[in-house]
Amino acid sequence: MTHKLDRNAKGVYLIAVTPFTDTGALDLASTDRMVDFYLERGATGLTILGIMGEATKLTAQESRSFVKQVLARVAGRVPVVVGASAAGFAPMRELTASVMDMGASGVMVAPAPTLRTDDQIIAYFDMVGETLGPDVPWVLQDHPVSTGVQMSTGVVLRILANAANCVMLKHEDCPGLAKLSALRAASERGDLPRPSILAGNGGGLFLPEELGRGADGAMTGFAYPEMMVDVCAAHAGGDVERAHDLFDAYLPLARYEQQAGIGLAVRKHLMVQRGAIASAMVRKPGPALSAADRADIERLVRRQERRLHALDASS
Amino acid sequence: MTHKLDRNAKGVYLIAVTPFTDTGALDLASTDRMVDFYLERGATGLTILGIMGEATKLTAQESRSFVKQVLARVAGRVPVVVGASAAGFAPMRELTASVMDMGASGVMVAPAPTLRTDDQIIAYFDMVGETLGPDVPWVLQDHPVSTGVQMSTGVVLRILANAANCVMLKHEDCPGLAKLSALRAASERGDLPRPSILAGNGGGLFLPEELGRGADGAMTGFAYPEMMVDVCAAHAGGDVERAHDLFDAYLPLARYEQQAGIGLAVRKHLMVQRGAIASAMVRKPGPALSAADRADIERLVRRQERRLHALDASS
Amino acid sequence: MTHKLDRNAKGVYLIAVTPFTDTGALDLASTDRMVDFYLERGATGLTILGIMGEATKLTAQESRSFVKQVLARVAGRVPVVVGASAAGFAPMRELTASVMDMGASGVMVAPAPTLRTDDQIIAYFDMVGETLGPDVPWVLQDHPVSTGVQMSTGVVLRILANAANCVMLKHEDCPGLAKLSALRAASERGDLPRPSILAGNGGGLFLPEELGRGADGAMTGFAYPEMMVDVCAAHAGGDVERAHDLFDAYLPLARYEQQAGIGLAVRKHLMVQRGAIASAMVRKPGPALSAADRADIERLVRRQERRLHALDASS
Amino acid sequence: MTHKLDRNAKGVYLIAVTPFTDTGALDLASTDRMVDFYLERGATGLTILGIMGEATKLTAQESRSFVKQVLARVAGRVPVVVGASAAGFAPMRELTASVMDMGASGVMVAPAPTLRTDDQIIAYFDMVGETLGPDVPWVLQDHPVSTGVQMSTGVVLRILANAANCVMLKHEDCPGLAKLSALRAASERGDLPRPSILAGNGGGLFLPEELGRGADGAMTGFAYPEMMVDVCAAHAGGDVERAHDLFDAYLPLARYEQQAGIGLAVRKHLMVQRGAIASAMVRKPGPALSAADRADIERLVRRQERRLHALDASS
Repeated sequence: MTHKLDRNAKGVYLIAVTPFTDTGALDLASTDRMVDFYLERGATGLTILGIMGEATKLTAQESRSFVKQVLARVAGRVPVVVGASAAGFAPMRELTASVMDMGASGVMVAPAPTLRTDDQIIAYFDMVGETLGPDVPWVLQDHPVSTGVQMSTGVVLRILANAANCVMLKHEDCPGLAKLSALRAASERGDLPRPSILAGNGGGLFLPEELGRGADGAMTGFAYPEMMVDVCAAHAGGDVERAHDLFDAYLPLARYEQQAGIGLAVRKHLMVQRGAIASAMVRKPGPALSAADRADIERLVRRQERRLHALDASS
Repeated sequence: MTHKLDRNAKGVYLIAVTPFTDTGALDLASTDRMVDFYLERGATGLTILGIMGEATKLTAQESRSFVKQVLARVAGRVPVVVGASAAGFAPMRELTASVMDMGASGVMVAPAPTLRTDDQIIAYFDMVGETLGPDVPWVLQDHPVSTGVQMSTGVVLRILANAANCVMLKHEDCPGLAKLSALRAASERGDLPRPSILAGNGGGLFLPEELGRGADGAMTGFAYPEMMVDVCAAHAGGDVERAHDLFDAYLPLARYEQQAGIGLAVRKHLMVQRGAIASAMVRKPGPALSAADRADIERLVRRQERRLHALDASS
Repeated sequence: MTHKLDRNAKGVYLIAVTPFTDTGALDLASTDRMVDFYLERGATGLTILGIMGEATKLTAQESRSFVKQVLARVAGRVPVVVGASAAGFAPMRELTASVMDMGASGVMVAPAPTLRTDDQIIAYFDMVGETLGPDVPWVLQDHPVSTGVQMSTGVVLRILANAANCVMLKHEDCPGLAKLSALRAASERGDLPRPSILAGNGGGLFLPEELGRGADGAMTGFAYPEMMVDVCAAHAGGDVERAHDLFDAYLPLARYEQQAGIGLAVRKHLMVQRGAIASAMVRKPGPALSAADRADIERLVRRQERRLHALDASS
Repeated sequence: MTHKLDRNAKGVYLIAVTPFTDTGALDLASTDRMVDFYLERGATGLTILGIMGEATKLTAQESRSFVKQVLARVAGRVPVVVGASAAGFAPMRELTASVMDMGASGVMVAPAPTLRTDDQIIAYFDMVGETLGPDVPWVLQDHPVSTGVQMSTGVVLRILANAANCVMLKHEDCPGLAKLSALRAASERGDLPRPSILAGNGGGLFLPEELGRGADGAMTGFAYPEMMVDVCAAHAGGDVERAHDLFDAYLPLARYEQQAGIGLAVRKHLMVQRGAIASAMVRKPGPALSAADRADIERLVRRQERRLHALDASS
């Protein structure tokens, strides 16, 4: 039984990778293992066909197969959000209708890279709202690094206020803590219905601070999703220092995985090592790891395990 | 009988618009009229699903319908090139296979907007060559204004030399006359097989000079395609002053139609007036003309007719 | 006797070049000749140290010498505006104080290239207003092509309303006719004190239409400033067709001179031919003309003279 | 006694801030304290008038005063590099001559933001070499995040090979480890004279890995310069795990200080707390810290002290 995405969403929505075989074909068996891997580690939602899901490198048929496979494996246990950013509204409508039919819980839309002024951005999301229609809950993605579009706090608030179905903000602006505080303050004051805000700034590199500013959790990717799950849980339980301790234990590796350009290759390499997928293949054009990169990762993992062991012992 | 695009291509390849009805639906009846309009005015080829063809605003199904309709109406009389730039290689391969099956003569590819260094650009087009395979002739589109990618003369020459099937360059860099001279000089020296070079700099606003530098014709859009046809013919016939006279007669309106952002609305408005399509509809997000814009256009058309009349009288 | 720039400014403010000798030294003798050249052809103002004045290539001492020379030669006959865009407010204040002391009539400021949101832009110009102080009239330069900053109509109106000393808008957005209409409509309605609006869209390539939308004249550069002067005069005299006739006669060459990247070299080449400056030198990094470029220009000038002769004969 | 910068440079070159008073005036007393602070913590060089030194916000006179003050206080104990990136070569030459006369050890130059193709970049640095002349050692700054210019490994190697006086690379490309490996491999093979390479990727957030790839140290800023000094020393002493231990202890705060946009305010706030400067003032337009930001920092500092204490106890 599918549930639609709503404003109460919290916890960790994993930005899922798209697994390929060593020859570059879509790997549906690994897709199942990956879904299990994420859910077993406590994911409260999944987001697929995002940038880190190599969405633009898939054919239309591959996209459909992948979405179908994920939805079947999830089987309604957690919400699944599908990236629906598109260069035009007709393909956005087509993709959205298709994935909602299959059982997705909602879609995520980022501003088109050509937008510049406040008026243009607000008009664009009015058209997004019309395009998606009254039955599709959606996530506003605020990620200037990938889109080049800077949305001020006021603009985000106006979009959220205008669009009844925009139930969540994926907050990835940087620096973003002040913006997060201001957005949450506005919803606490009742200026607009309280949206779910999941943070992804720098790929989760500011997670403890973001939770402190009112984020309801995280929506990002990391080969150790349990870090985000445990940090959110500790924070929700009021143990902020414990949240930082956990975060700090993973930070050196998380930082390495968040390197622009090469990060996805690092993530897939780690996910192979952890048994989540079969191959670290990234479709072209994409990065590949060198022996030196793998040695760096090996050291960082070894050191991370030591720190986690010490942390367990102390708690 | 379809003919594949080859290095001997010359004349005027019209960048076709995509006609919509007033309610925004694909207008296949107007598609036929538009094809007739272009061919009756002397187009030696058509290019469809380009930026000015609103390609990104079409669903996959609409793209297929439009391509099919154009190819059926053209019926092999002139080559038809289809824009195949895509964010990933799998969708590029899928689209290319589909349109070549339907009878297209070749595809056109621009560099991905993320490319920066010479090495990245050259590696990208090596992958394009692999993706398209040995049977698909293709056009390299050099249009920094839309892609943000600047390809030096040396880089363009290396791409052309590397790719046996890259038979044509759509030259739209600006300033571009020196680059055009250098590219043609290299092919005349025999550094590489002579490519067809069709110019589109500023939407044809430098056509007479480009022909003087070795362009084989034009690939761009203008609601008066006969201007480009006649300029090319006069130039090919050795009457350079006549080519300029014709060009100058159309320049004030061409300039107005080439305004970034609003140009497509101007072009469709003029094509409606000329009976080429039924509606000037541009899909959202897109510009609309004001009464003042239409008055500007009316004056420019009236003045243009007067100049053309004077030119006819004098020739 | 210097007069400060005010809201009544109209006519043609020439964007002056900075003349160098063949060896690249500042050429003060040519500076005098250039001032005479512009004023004899009817310039109602000069703007110096703009982008096309190679301002960033001058040392601080050279800038001062050049400003001083221009002001001495102008001798108060027309207002002189000095470009004061700077990466920081302290150098903007320093430069402004220095040139106002020397007798400039005002300064011109464009938004810093890093600005993105409406709020950022408005806050920036509040700081510009504070920096320049109560005694310096200034020009707001709206030129997205060079700054990358897009200011909506609403933002421009708020800046103009906030800053009592911002007496003029240099309008160079493209497409810009609708924006110009909206800005002028707002000042006609009395929403804000009526600013002078001088147009420069595409280097004057839309001058007749801009005058029709409420521009008070032009602020741009062209080696034939009499074109802009005569077009403005004809328009002001109510003879719109005559304004277009004049404009059209110069358009083929104006278009060639407005090519990005190489335009300044074309302009200086023509100014040397017309006796306005001694050398076409552009400081590095900058373009140089080829023999083919010069041949293009020669043909365009010859054809222009023929058209102007015919126009004189007909009037 | 001043020493010129040379290829043997290593260790930590601090990117210095520029101290202001609470009212925004240049604070020369704090300048002295800051120099002492950096040198007492083991800096082997200083870099001033960089982006994080708010260079563009200073008047020419302020720049000179600041450089003079720093050089006087350093008194030849370590090399001082001065940022000399400028929009034109004449001001670059003027600034360079001025600071070298005062006793600087060299200058640092980044590519102009307008450069795109490999040829353009290489030609630009040929002109930089000519501009600086045979007596000024210089640092090539490779920082695409601030310049927008991506230089491939091949381009950096050609610049280094072409310019005899380019003795150091400030390596800040990201992802940059593969590039660093390739650059160092080329100099080890003897393809070019071995340059000093100081790393600054992400503000030092990859320092241990960069040292492992052949960096000679770091050139970046951090309010705890002893981190970089100690990490470099441990690495140079062969204790890579110790280098990582130290790095990890500071990483949570370093990450916070490296937030784009707000980072400089964090750094100055911490430097005030540590007694290095009197005021955290950042000149407009610039960020200011909120109470929540300061609380974040306080927690991070407290936790960092605890980790450092534990690390001392364990070593």
